[in-house]
Amino acid sequence: MLILVTNDDGIQSPGIRALAKAMKRLGEVYVVAPDRERTAAGHSLTLHKPLRIEPLGRRAFSVSGTPTDCVNLAVNEILPRRPDLVVSGINRGGNLGDDVTYSGTVSAAMEGTLVGIPSIALSQLGEAHFHFETSARFATRLVRQVYRFGLPPDTLLNVNVPDLPPPAVKGVRVTCLGKRIFDSNNIIKKEDPRGKTYYWIAGNRVSWEERKDTDQEAVESGRISVTPVHLDLTNYTALAALREWEKRLTPFRRRTRPSRRP
Amino acid sequence: MLILVTNDDGIQSPGIRALAKAMKRLGEVYVVAPDRERTAAGHSLTLHKPLRIEPLGRRAFSVSGTPTDCVNLAVNEILPRRPDLVVSGINRGGNLGDDVTYSGTVSAAMEGTLVGIPSIALSQLGEAHFHFETSARFATRLVRQVYRFGLPPDTLLNVNVPDLPPPAVKGVRVTCLGKRIFDSNNIIKKEDPRGKTYYWIAGNRVSWEERKDTDQEAVESGRISVTPVHLDLTNYTALAALREWEKRLTPFRRRTRPSRRP
Repeated sequence: MLILVTNDDGIQSPGIRALAKAMKRLGEVYVVAPDRERTAAGHSLTLHKPLRIEPLGRRAFSVSGTPTDCVNLAVNEILPRRPDLVVSGINRGGNLGDDVTYSGTVSAAMEGTLVGIPSIALSQLGEAHFHFETSARFATRLVRQVYRFGLPPDTLLNVNVPDLPPPAVKGVRVTCLGKRIFDSNNIIKKEDPRGKTYYWIAGNRVSWEERKDTDQEAVESGRISVTPVHLDLTNYTALAALREWEKRLTPFRRRTRPSRRP
Repeated sequence: MLILVTNDDGIQSPGIRALAKAMKRLGEVYVVAPDRERTAAGHSLTLHKPLRIEPLGRRAFSVSGTPTDCVNLAVNEILPRRPDLVVSGINRGGNLGDDVTYSGTVSAAMEGTLVGIPSIALSQLGEAHFHFETSARFATRLVRQVYRFGLPPDTLLNVNVPDLPPPAVKGVRVTCLGKRIFDSNNIIKKEDPRGKTYYWIAGNRVSWEERKDTDQEAVESGRISVTPVHLDLTNYTALAALREWEKRLTPFRRRTRPSRRP
């Protein structure tokens, strides 16, 4: 089994080391990860500037780009053959609910999925200390399972692990994505030493909508959440209702052609 | 009606000017857009550095960040009240199929949707010349419709307009997202003046999977595509099958407690 390991916290982070170590028990591992932290990088590709690849070992490479760039370069340039799996993480902190659209960790798994490789994103909840050993142990199990049974089409697994040591974990739940209630006071306004205003996006979104079987609910109850995330973003249930709009919106009035008959 | 106009090509681009002009016929318009091109920025938030807001007029502001940052700052800091709509574009070039996960134009509409505002992303296909007037005219119609009838929950509209002047457009289609077939030769490898290797991600993905009612099929046949894009990425149809995994994966073996009875 050839496994590509990447992340968005950067190649030096303890999370990716714990993950790479665990994966080496399962097969051949290549680590291709950003040279620095790329948190909240979203699914961004670097198209406007060249990228550098720095070998840090026989199977470890740092890239001067985003997690998406890393997967792209790994698959198309660095690895000796197409990997069997892409595993992204272990992220320092959760990627729950709507976070998946911002998360660099999840984006790397998106890129893997888009190029047709089964992909997993792993995030370890925590505060100052992170129980990466819990995520790493679960990753070993999950990767075996995915390698054996595959994944549904265009679907990645987004895994969030509660802030607990392995024996304290209460179980595993297959979940939906939760939905945050956004705090509107998330901008911090300050003045720089020259009296010019600057802004920080704080992103302190604290509360969650009441929903059943969500990832957030699972981790809060001490369980590992595994969410199947679909890359076909079409809202199929909305299609029928919106089809009624076609006539209203169609199209720009044309000059009516004079009828041939009188 | 208060409309927030943004984009990812930057505030100086002709596409956003054409859009702002068209929207001014419908209500009060604020333009808050990146100070430079942010193509393929994905849904990325700038958390690691401060942002600057530069007023360029009474209702026009450039931001030193991503399209997502722009919507965030506009809604929470710049605008006098919550906007009724977010309209992002007009992008120079299409955002079809899987592109929506990379696109800065679509990401701005995602951010609007996440904070609960009906949002539309507009992209104009073209090569050297872009018929922004076609997109702008359609936007006027569509915005009226969305303002009147609203949108399904957690759903934005992704609009792609064919490379045609208004009278040549054949109609409007409510579509699904197409799926690209990825080209594996998308990395260009070169040497810099000092003999060091660098890489460009070319992203020349050319072919499409055969699917019905896709956005790509619509624009190729001269029609405007309107795709409802859902922000709940949970793959609900995969949940049942994956629930069977719960038992296999659950959880780490615990030391079994000695039984009390002999």
